[in-house]
Amino acid sequence: MITESDFSFMRQALALAAQAEARGEVPVGALIVHDNSVIAEAYNERETQPSALAHAELSAIRQACEKLGRWRLSGCTLYVTLEPCVMCAGALVQARVDRVVYGARDPKAGAVESLYQVLSDTRLNHRPQVDAGVLGEECGKILSDFFRRRRA
Amino acid sequence: MITESDFSFMRQALALAAQAEARGEVPVGALIVHDNSVIAEAYNERETQPSALAHAELSAIRQACEKLGRWRLSGCTLYVTLEPCVMCAGALVQARVDRVVYGARDPKAGAVESLYQVLSDTRLNHRPQVDAGVLGEECGKILSDFFRRRRA
Repeated sequence: MITESDFSFMRQALALAAQAEARGEVPVGALIVHDNSVIAEAYNERETQPSALAHAELSAIRQACEKLGRWRLSGCTLYVTLEPCVMCAGALVQARVDRVVYGARDPKAGAVESLYQVLSDTRLNHRPQVDAGVLGEECGKILSDFFRRRRA
Repeated sequence: MITESDFSFMRQALALAAQAEARGEVPVGALIVHDNSVIAEAYNERETQPSALAHAELSAIRQACEKLGRWRLSGCTLYVTLEPCVMCAGALVQARVDRVVYGARDPKAGAVESLYQVLSDTRLNHRPQVDAGVLGEECGKILSDFFRRRRA
């Protein structure tokens, strides 16, 4: 069930995406909530790090593991503005995240509903709860605006 | 085509897997070769870090991006003793690795030939060349021996 606090956390993820954009990065933001507190905040930094692994979700998972001192992120919810790719969806399973909330769909690379359904695969050893489409329009707009400006 | 040097690099990856085992970690090792030199060496450290992201392949990719100062690992071959999982296969696509050579198949979680075929998916924007089964028996034996001892 999607609650008021889900919208509030997704607004924070959108603010993180805007920070990525300000650095010329594809604007995607993510955060992780545990016991109702934000324990990790990240945005895409592929170009500035530079690292192929610097997607918002992976950076947030790394921070949360450090903060909690364990690899198992049970009790945690990850919020991300864009549907996770194969790498990030696989990482959410590896980290045993309880719940994943995302904004916009990614028809070209998404691995939750678009190209793959990694988070609902009964062959894997963990299946997070998923809520999609939270502030989906705004999360999609920041991306489409970014790419439109880049083409211009 | 599998060459003599592929066997030699896979022996080095097996030695890295043995280092993981010595630390009580599931024994998987990986390395990355660029211009015929090893530029990254890693092994699974999920429990010791602790981090859900500390698979051998991800740690090797991170090191290689740092070493080369770019997120695009074109010109690189990754060697790993075990078929990559969804997270790691996705990361190999994200990093645009030219070639992936692995040892043992992972029927429960492998995402190259077993559960998914991520590296040959024509919908994704990169497809590494794949060579499987190099020293496959030895790479599988170090894992099955580890799990047998752990059950005992």
